[in-house]
Amino acid sequence: MEKGFFHLMTSEKVKKILGEFSSLGYEEVELPSALERTAAFDIFSPEDLPPFARSTMDGYAVRARDVFGASETEPALLSVVGEIRMGQEPASLELGTGEAVKIWTGGILPKGGDAVVMVEYTRSLDPKLIEIYRAVAPSENVILRGQDCEKGALCISAGTRLRPQELGLLAGLGITRVRVVKRPCVAIISTGDEVVSEKETPPCGKIRDINSTTLEALVKKDGGVPKRLGIVPDSFEAILDACQRALDEGADVVLISGGSSVGARDYTLKVFEELTGSPPIVHGVAIRPGKPTIISRYGDKALFGLPGHVASCMVVYLLFVRHLLNIYQGLHPETGLKSLKVRCGQMFPSVTGREDYVRVTLKDSWDDIPEAFPVFGKSGLISTLVKAHGLLKIPRDSEGFHQGEEAEVLLL
Amino acid sequence: MEKGFFHLMTSEKVKKILGEFSSLGYEEVELPSALERTAAFDIFSPEDLPPFARSTMDGYAVRARDVFGASETEPALLSVVGEIRMGQEPASLELGTGEAVKIWTGGILPKGGDAVVMVEYTRSLDPKLIEIYRAVAPSENVILRGQDCEKGALCISAGTRLRPQELGLLAGLGITRVRVVKRPCVAIISTGDEVVSEKETPPCGKIRDINSTTLEALVKKDGGVPKRLGIVPDSFEAILDACQRALDEGADVVLISGGSSVGARDYTLKVFEELTGSPPIVHGVAIRPGKPTIISRYGDKALFGLPGHVASCMVVYLLFVRHLLNIYQGLHPETGLKSLKVRCGQMFPSVTGREDYVRVTLKDSWDDIPEAFPVFGKSGLISTLVKAHGLLKIPRDSEGFHQGEEAEVLLL
Repeated sequence: MEKGFFHLMTSEKVKKILGEFSSLGYEEVELPSALERTAAFDIFSPEDLPPFARSTMDGYAVRARDVFGASETEPALLSVVGEIRMGQEPASLELGTGEAVKIWTGGILPKGGDAVVMVEYTRSLDPKLIEIYRAVAPSENVILRGQDCEKGALCISAGTRLRPQELGLLAGLGITRVRVVKRPCVAIISTGDEVVSEKETPPCGKIRDINSTTLEALVKKDGGVPKRLGIVPDSFEAILDACQRALDEGADVVLISGGSSVGARDYTLKVFEELTGSPPIVHGVAIRPGKPTIISRYGDKALFGLPGHVASCMVVYLLFVRHLLNIYQGLHPETGLKSLKVRCGQMFPSVTGREDYVRVTLKDSWDDIPEAFPVFGKSGLISTLVKAHGLLKIPRDSEGFHQGEEAEVLLL
Repeated sequence: MEKGFFHLMTSEKVKKILGEFSSLGYEEVELPSALERTAAFDIFSPEDLPPFARSTMDGYAVRARDVFGASETEPALLSVVGEIRMGQEPASLELGTGEAVKIWTGGILPKGGDAVVMVEYTRSLDPKLIEIYRAVAPSENVILRGQDCEKGALCISAGTRLRPQELGLLAGLGITRVRVVKRPCVAIISTGDEVVSEKETPPCGKIRDINSTTLEALVKKDGGVPKRLGIVPDSFEAILDACQRALDEGADVVLISGGSSVGARDYTLKVFEELTGSPPIVHGVAIRPGKPTIISRYGDKALFGLPGHVASCMVVYLLFVRHLLNIYQGLHPETGLKSLKVRCGQMFPSVTGREDYVRVTLKDSWDDIPEAFPVFGKSGLISTLVKAHGLLKIPRDSEGFHQGEEAEVLLL
């Protein structure tokens, strides 16, 4: 007898459809701003790093063959022909047979030298003469020219998410601007005649908007640029106008939440159809909560009609909107999803034919695997999400879990 | 024969010592800026949320006892005495026995009504009369006044890290400014006569600074406010001056990296002793890489002498600096550390008496547990960190792992 969605789509199918979107264009940013963004192109090294062979120790630069077999009992005797400090050019210094040069960590290796003996394994007999107590292999205690990165080598591949160490490598190569994939701009619209801004005191019968603040924070966490467009009344014209404005202002994604009544959902659907000239690519998903989800495609942009109840809205965001934001950013679609193996602390009943996401708290148990317990409460209650550590997934083909069975939890 | 650190401290002991620092003071920020920050105080609800009983469905508000036992074959017959739209005040509407009111999702429940029957389970006989096909329990399809959060109830505890849903709850309660624990300000200083800024072309014998960029990004990721103070020469006066300036400008943490030569380390140590008037609280740690670490305490502030080699520097940052940044922010000290169980893809030898952190790449294997393989290369090579997915930990009491043994990896 339930009205509405006759052909619910599986979540796998929704993700497959979202997989047809592609990553956004690129922009060039300063190095520090490139953190956790995606390299838009392969980056090749413009030079050798380091540009010269360097010592990694304080000690003496030598020719390894001159100290072959040196030991405590049979030290090698070398004459000291100079000193190289860090940052100093060794000028015309060149090591001949039986010669050594005093060198400091980071110092440039003199011509002819191929290894460094740590100062601990030497004894100075006079300023011009040292004993060496340990043999070194060629290249020992030395970083060779280009050993970190050779000129022309691929040092960072397109699609790499830039971590602190990737930025460090680029700094070392003198690359201070990087071309990265753009961040998706996400317009957030709340609908509902009963909703007022969180900055207002709601008159009787009205409540404050919760979804906009929650979605704004989620988008920011996932690398998008949220843009709140406020609250619009439950009417076709108002929703159409807000959507149109969002698209005109460059939104890559429009999120409309609220409108949990059948009438309001109809407006969202009609607006999407009016804008795109075609039916939605997703209309109803076999998940709970989150069933009344609508997704339309407008060129390269995506329009989401999210459920109004905040828990449903968040589940749909986490499963699908985040998925698309990752794709837009050139990232693996599951980036940022942390899942955990848990043991069910009690029975989790479900029905086959839909995927359930049950809000749960986690408790430490006798072994490494935490126990999951359901958080009770309607999906319109934000407090249930505040209490929850994660969402326990009950697969579509499952009638639920018995107490003690293992399951997967998406961390919130 | 090795010089320097005779009493190496275990990493557990270092963390215990860092545990004596306490969280920073608080500041008040706008709601969206509070994301992922720590609530400095308990937050109590200033009002009931929602402020009235609301319908969660489109349907009819009823008295549950009037539809007790209603079914397809024996529907209940109720007279419709009005309609309540979302956001509308129900004025003087009050339900008497046998009466119903048409209501929309989000609509305020009329006096006397205690449940909502979904429109799907009703049939309108005429505008004033409906049949109801299903019984409802009291409170069914209704969110009660204060059910999300009761006035005066603790809704967010001090020390909670604010997720999107916590911000959503605060928005719902009209709390648009939050008192959160301050972010630690972290001054970053590179030393070394051989180091130039990443913006320069290094003259012969010099190389570009890698550590500052890497540390800046790490600090940003961990919620700190990085402040780069540039490169200072390897001299007591220059390092003292830079440290003093950092402290004067409000740094909570000073990171000095570089100075991997014995002489430069001595300067850092002497500067810390000059500033604090006491020996460092940590001087040498039984980890590899990362042994030559110095930590001093200056009132509530911390001074770190980090190893110059970038991989060593990063390991010490991840183990200890991040630990302290979490403590400063009132977070669990291990926040942000992601570790993973892996299987050793080959032998990982070590020696007892120190903890090893081996850079590894991870490969998918026949089961869920990835296989770890070492990334070879000196700890001065940033490229080893770029290749690495994580750091495989070999505990202090272990001589290493055999191929096939399970181990723990900290993800980079």
